[in-house]
Amino acid sequence: MKDAAMQIPTLDDMRSARDRIRPHVHVTPVLTSRMLDEMTGAQLFFKCENLQKAGAFKARGASNAVFGLSDAQAARGVATHSSGNHGTCLAYAAGRRGIPCTVVMPHTAPQAKKDAVRGYGGIVVECEPSTTSREAVFARVVEETGAEFVHPYNDPRVIAGQATCSAELIEQVEGLDAVVAPIGGGGMISGTCLTLSNLAPQVKIYAAEPEQADDAARSFRAGHIIADDAPDTIADGLKVPLKDLTWHFVKNHVTDILTASEDEIVEAMKLTWKRMKIVIEPSCAVPLAVILKNPTVFAGKRVGVIITGGNVDLDRLPWMEGVMP
Amino acid sequence: MKDAAMQIPTLDDMRSARDRIRPHVHVTPVLTSRMLDEMTGAQLFFKCENLQKAGAFKARGASNAVFGLSDAQAARGVATHSSGNHGTCLAYAAGRRGIPCTVVMPHTAPQAKKDAVRGYGGIVVECEPSTTSREAVFARVVEETGAEFVHPYNDPRVIAGQATCSAELIEQVEGLDAVVAPIGGGGMISGTCLTLSNLAPQVKIYAAEPEQADDAARSFRAGHIIADDAPDTIADGLKVPLKDLTWHFVKNHVTDILTASEDEIVEAMKLTWKRMKIVIEPSCAVPLAVILKNPTVFAGKRVGVIITGGNVDLDRLPWMEGVMP
Repeated sequence: MKDAAMQIPTLDDMRSARDRIRPHVHVTPVLTSRMLDEMTGAQLFFKCENLQKAGAFKARGASNAVFGLSDAQAARGVATHSSGNHGTCLAYAAGRRGIPCTVVMPHTAPQAKKDAVRGYGGIVVECEPSTTSREAVFARVVEETGAEFVHPYNDPRVIAGQATCSAELIEQVEGLDAVVAPIGGGGMISGTCLTLSNLAPQVKIYAAEPEQADDAARSFRAGHIIADDAPDTIADGLKVPLKDLTWHFVKNHVTDILTASEDEIVEAMKLTWKRMKIVIEPSCAVPLAVILKNPTVFAGKRVGVIITGGNVDLDRLPWMEGVMP
Repeated sequence: MKDAAMQIPTLDDMRSARDRIRPHVHVTPVLTSRMLDEMTGAQLFFKCENLQKAGAFKARGASNAVFGLSDAQAARGVATHSSGNHGTCLAYAAGRRGIPCTVVMPHTAPQAKKDAVRGYGGIVVECEPSTTSREAVFARVVEETGAEFVHPYNDPRVIAGQATCSAELIEQVEGLDAVVAPIGGGGMISGTCLTLSNLAPQVKIYAAEPEQADDAARSFRAGHIIADDAPDTIADGLKVPLKDLTWHFVKNHVTDILTASEDEIVEAMKLTWKRMKIVIEPSCAVPLAVILKNPTVFAGKRVGVIITGGNVDLDRLPWMEGVMP
């Protein structure tokens, strides 16, 4: 990609995405909890993308990519590499359009995620749990199938799709002071930046990241992308590094990147299950963990919290014996 | 109660309840799942009272009772006996009004439910896990405090409150053919009957009950109330027997009462967590369990499913080792 500037999605791209994906995704509900408000001193508005089609916000970006393809492109199918939800969601979108979908994912990914891809008719090809192995195996798959590559996050179609989430949120909740979303590769954060910087520039955008996979936070401080090859965290959706497109949005529009420990993430996850009665992944608990950890940043504020997905292995919950190291 | 007929709540009582409780309860969302529709052959609309204030539909009836009290009555507080959620919800409503609330509950009730009552400022008094012990301990509490008794279900104020749930549901979903709700004492089912028999009499009403606590199903077949003293089921919200008011509604308006085994209930519970991404109690899984078990009854139909509550002990989930007998 020589001229990355040409690829940066715009507000019009978000609006087109919203029209394109409307038949394929839910307008997800926003939930609140008096108890969590009391605990944090903030007013929290949880945008429940765990209740999204295929169980994650990534249904938005994947649907936008799949339904934006020409018939000729679509006939060759789509392919991606993904630590989980993007693969599931691309398989979901491809299934809706009736085209093939191949997903490269680490053999260590939760069985539930592999089953989910297959459940939507996708093909799973396994790789080692590192970015380098994933990219090598993927290159072979694309060469063999001729499929259209839909990157999990560093793709303008995907970012424009994810951007529809915040567009809904600011229609559902008035007067937000801040939005907090998890950051892995930065697709959701980039979509959030795209929409809010244009439509609600007064809203501060915070990214939340596991301490044990804090490459985005270190990139943010350093002023350039720092990528780790295989970080280890319970928040398995957040292990991937920033790329040029997502770095563009992070660098220009994010107020801060805050981190939480593994224990803090698990505690926030369990608290959300208990108080909100929703099933969320460890990755989605990172925003609440950083809000609980940084009360002075958020107290007295109206804060949108993006709950990104709910695809967990119910037989391996982090508070079950033997699951956490 | 000499003239029970005088106590039967009316559609006007439901409408008054709806106005009275509006500031204190959520209009809960209705969720759908393509996967569960495919598995059942029906179109299912899940009315998510697990996302209700205090985690259960019982916030409706409790709020209606508490906010309908005169100031003089309210000053003496309220009291109840409850296997769990009604107690929590009465404490919630009393807390909103700033009046005392005493809850008698079995010492075997989940710790999470005792904590929840106390968390809302209620006082927990423990009894043995049988209907007879519960009623004896409770009589003493009322004598000592002079509190207003709000029965968990056999109370016209409570039934009118629960009836607001179906009033929302038929506004949220058009053309329902049937509604399925769990049955224990029959409060939710009675409220459902009250609303639907008046506003949508074409909608069939099914009650769902654990096989191991099937007193309502046996009552329904026998034509009179049969009460068991201490049935044993994982669906701990459904152990209590029908009483005269709820029997009135069940006998006159319920199409059938269907039952499910313990294993079927746990499987439906886990399936709901996995597919719907919501935390539900075993009691709420009984409707989905009977729908899965009786495909010929529900296939091709538009079916409302009342998800009654989400208050579970996350450290004692039924699929964890050693929890089920």
